[in-house]
Amino acid sequence: MATPRVTLRDVAERAGVSRTTASFVMTGRRDMRISADAEARVRQAARELNYRPNLVARSLRTNLSQTIGLISDVIATESFAGEVVRGSLATAVRNEHLMFIGETEGDAEVEQRLVQDMLDRGVRGFLYGSMYTRQATLPAILRGHPVVLLNCVTRGRSHAMVVPDEREAGRTAATALLEAGHRDGIVVVGELPSHVIAARERDEGIRRALDAAGTAPAGAVDCLWWPEPARTAVGAFLRDGGRATAFIAINDRVALGIYQALAAAGWRVPEDVSVVSFDDSDLAAWLDPALTSIAIPHFELGRRAVELLLDEDRRTGVHRVPMPLRGRASIGPPRG
Amino acid sequence: MATPRVTLRDVAERAGVSRTTASFVMTGRRDMRISADAEARVRQAARELNYRPNLVARSLRTNLSQTIGLISDVIATESFAGEVVRGSLATAVRNEHLMFIGETEGDAEVEQRLVQDMLDRGVRGFLYGSMYTRQATLPAILRGHPVVLLNCVTRGRSHAMVVPDEREAGRTAATALLEAGHRDGIVVVGELPSHVIAARERDEGIRRALDAAGTAPAGAVDCLWWPEPARTAVGAFLRDGGRATAFIAINDRVALGIYQALAAAGWRVPEDVSVVSFDDSDLAAWLDPALTSIAIPHFELGRRAVELLLDEDRRTGVHRVPMPLRGRASIGPPRG
Repeated sequence: MATPRVTLRDVAERAGVSRTTASFVMTGRRDMRISADAEARVRQAARELNYRPNLVARSLRTNLSQTIGLISDVIATESFAGEVVRGSLATAVRNEHLMFIGETEGDAEVEQRLVQDMLDRGVRGFLYGSMYTRQATLPAILRGHPVVLLNCVTRGRSHAMVVPDEREAGRTAATALLEAGHRDGIVVVGELPSHVIAARERDEGIRRALDAAGTAPAGAVDCLWWPEPARTAVGAFLRDGGRATAFIAINDRVALGIYQALAAAGWRVPEDVSVVSFDDSDLAAWLDPALTSIAIPHFELGRRAVELLLDEDRRTGVHRVPMPLRGRASIGPPRG
Repeated sequence: MATPRVTLRDVAERAGVSRTTASFVMTGRRDMRISADAEARVRQAARELNYRPNLVARSLRTNLSQTIGLISDVIATESFAGEVVRGSLATAVRNEHLMFIGETEGDAEVEQRLVQDMLDRGVRGFLYGSMYTRQATLPAILRGHPVVLLNCVTRGRSHAMVVPDEREAGRTAATALLEAGHRDGIVVVGELPSHVIAARERDEGIRRALDAAGTAPAGAVDCLWWPEPARTAVGAFLRDGGRATAFIAINDRVALGIYQALAAAGWRVPEDVSVVSFDDSDLAAWLDPALTSIAIPHFELGRRAVELLLDEDRRTGVHRVPMPLRGRASIGPPRG
């Protein structure tokens, strides 16, 4: 007994917005100004009603005549999310391709077998994906086959590589604070320096934006990228008399730890201190107050990678996908 | 430049536990008592180091000679998580099968085409999956082919169906509170009655366990399954003089909203009130204090479904996968 198909109108009604607003949110259009609150309500209503925009049916014209393969070190984590798989799948099917999926767990032998078995079945091209943005060495067996790297890069420029624009995201975060009036009290929280490319690039972007404004981070709190280490480290920072007008959290999990440490110390967000973060995971919208965060464009990364794979004239080298600011309630002016 | 492969020893060292403890955590063995804290540290270290137990290489014997397909309404959400895909994939590959993946977005025409195109490529069987546990009607095109339903059920018993044991989970949650001494002050928070099978079954399990102990829920707070609605509803409950010794949150997102409402009202967890929840999403371990939650066994659901699909003597009907209690710090004795 299937439930009746949920329409966009149902979503709009539940969210208390116009159908047009709901449509703009669900299709990701940004050419109409929509409040973060309305966007959050639409997304919430869509999830509650189990609404999905029908990307596939909208443009499916004929049979899925060809096949591509997604080879990844790990399929499921919160950072290399299922949304990447969704973006890849939707774009593959819209272009009449089925998709194999394979997880190597970082094992070269498994990788070799998965690729060979997919080739044996006539796979015409591969997405080669990674959980964290990293340097990768393509296996020899992929040589001569169409490959697009997804969330990883190789030396040289013989392949197309799709990664989030982390450096620009760092700049975006710092600029959001500068525009709110912060300047000499901005503290970065995360594991720094980091071996993680995303962290290094975010940090570079932050420093460049502050440098262009004639300032620099007031300090850095070094901690692992999880709530509890961040809570402990920021708690110690505050107890030691550390002062900040704003924290830049290296990701949303760290921001949660910052919120917890601030709450324990009696500081309010954003009245006493502002917080901005990266990832725009679900967590960001759930925090109280809701967290301003720079989004990893998961769906878009998958979509872009498949588009490039199916484009025989694709440009090689690094394709950086913008990371949009999701403005919420965690940034205010510095406390006078 | 690939990073050297992270070993279990690296994980154990970072987590500050023995290699044996780390091994038990990573392989999911439960026959050694491991503290929730140690388990959390091992999992955290494993993620930070990007360690993955090599399930595939461990038992891959020969080529992947056959193919199965995973057809799902939606691939990526926090509840029907990528871990289901991981569990399915790892088990398929271990049994020498490649896996196609297809997302229908609930559209019957897309479903028909995906299935047909997979059949054209010699797919020998299907997992038919759903995001939320629900009643499903199998498309006619699947008739006569091996199919296992994953997280959904059909009328009749002609297929094998794999679902989480939600009713038993409800009983587990209530029993955890009863064992801590709670009895007549247990309040359930969520959208009740719900059209969602999981919610109905959780609620039934809670009521049965309380009934067997000669009591019943002291009340119910009705709200949507998200932090903000829960925060608002529980805030109103407390302002109106509502009293509870413990809250059962229908999921971890609702529990987050409960924590936020309690913090705003000056109640401490678990000294003033206990909280237990369902899902055991990442969020549960991140809250302060860490949240006791009944886990959805995502990986295990995928694993079990593939095992059944590849077993020609599979038992039809409903296979319920246990939902384990993840005990943390949010349950204490009722306040004297």
